[in-house]
Amino acid sequence: MLRRTAHALADAAREAILPHFRAFDLQTENKLEDEFDPVTIADRAAEQAMRDILAKDRPKDAILGEEFGHLKGQSGLTWVLDPIDGTRGFIAGTPTWGVLIAICDDSGPLYGIIDQPYIGERFEGGFGHATMLGPHGSKKLRTKVGFDLAQSIIFTTFPEIGTKIDQAAFHAVAKTCKLTRYGMDCYAYALLAAGQIDLVIEAGLQSYDIAAPIAVIQAAGGIVTDWTGGSAYRGGRVIAAASAQQHAEALEIMQQFDLD
Amino acid sequence: MLRRTAHALADAAREAILPHFRAFDLQTENKLEDEFDPVTIADRAAEQAMRDILAKDRPKDAILGEEFGHLKGQSGLTWVLDPIDGTRGFIAGTPTWGVLIAICDDSGPLYGIIDQPYIGERFEGGFGHATMLGPHGSKKLRTKVGFDLAQSIIFTTFPEIGTKIDQAAFHAVAKTCKLTRYGMDCYAYALLAAGQIDLVIEAGLQSYDIAAPIAVIQAAGGIVTDWTGGSAYRGGRVIAAASAQQHAEALEIMQQFDLD
Repeated sequence: MLRRTAHALADAAREAILPHFRAFDLQTENKLEDEFDPVTIADRAAEQAMRDILAKDRPKDAILGEEFGHLKGQSGLTWVLDPIDGTRGFIAGTPTWGVLIAICDDSGPLYGIIDQPYIGERFEGGFGHATMLGPHGSKKLRTKVGFDLAQSIIFTTFPEIGTKIDQAAFHAVAKTCKLTRYGMDCYAYALLAAGQIDLVIEAGLQSYDIAAPIAVIQAAGGIVTDWTGGSAYRGGRVIAAASAQQHAEALEIMQQFDLD
Repeated sequence: MLRRTAHALADAAREAILPHFRAFDLQTENKLEDEFDPVTIADRAAEQAMRDILAKDRPKDAILGEEFGHLKGQSGLTWVLDPIDGTRGFIAGTPTWGVLIAICDDSGPLYGIIDQPYIGERFEGGFGHATMLGPHGSKKLRTKVGFDLAQSIIFTTFPEIGTKIDQAAFHAVAKTCKLTRYGMDCYAYALLAAGQIDLVIEAGLQSYDIAAPIAVIQAAGGIVTDWTGGSAYRGGRVIAAASAQQHAEALEIMQQFDLD
């Protein structure tokens, strides 16, 4: 039931967003500078569409959304929504932004969806599910196992991650990895859950940036914490790892830095 | 006729590559280190499939391919093939690598295709065409016009581009732009042709990395040269720009560096 509502939200967000993706005509192009603040019409339309469904189907649940803030509830459940994670990628036309939907209780995320509307890919995890459905069919999500840091592929959104010390800590981990890649936004978490990559390290996140990835990655066998091994649910500095071994190795390197 | 053959090549490459994309099972995962040299089975299978078609349909044309080198011809035309541009992205499971197919004569690229098999997107330019066909329909390709560098979105594959001086020149341009993004491989050239982004600057390219993007971008109204304004067809340091104005502004900045 909750899961069906989550899929209905993701469907509604797709419908609200897709007409705006890569839709810049000459007129909007000339206004691009004004609307570069990455809150687009699509962001707001998608979150509104999702809130409309929740108002009808789940009126007692709380909502925390990027665009329209916090709505109190009485059920103990909170829907954590980021209508477009990776708005800069969205504005640049890349297909690696996503819609993030999480169902949380006091213990943290129980279930999450990472949806990529343009490709038509949906990654879900929680309530006994860990699956992706894409243009070439469906697949179980399962993180990689049996690798150490030297064999790892690591992602972050851009090299100027967080503060100077954050950057130093990230790059200390990255230089021990096999391959470092940038620019994937929330899609990197989906790739980790799908067993494609090993680590995602980011800083300066909000709760709505990470709640859904936590649920999807945990359901696929991975680990998501902050940089000291604590809960990542409130955002901030986040590390997602395919295995406990890679997580421990990366944390050991980062804890050599003065992260307070 | 040539165009129909080019599409047949792109179709054959899709079919050869897709079974290998994200197909790592536990066994291949454990061998990943051995095969990290980014020449995968998929690369070779795709180039062979394309060469088989050309041997039958265009036996007098020359071929230059990343995997199997140069085949001489007698027609004056050369097919320039990169079966998977962005093998590192391919290995990481990102959907922004591509198949590059160009038809060239002595003057350079006449026609090109940038194909993304997983998304099912094909960008083509030349012989009077400048079109993309994707999962949500077909669209004319046309680069952005009327913007200066301060309004521009710039891409390169990774921040450690080329030599130290290459890096300095790239970052001097990037810091005057509105937004810098990394990690898109050849997909960045497709986004430029589609009017989504403004500049792509790279170094250390081969002819087969850039021949198809040149054809697609020029057909869409953009400009591709080396960093001194000369031909980019032989690879090396390449700048692609949506408009003459942005191209001139970027070149002026880069020419302050000792690029020999």
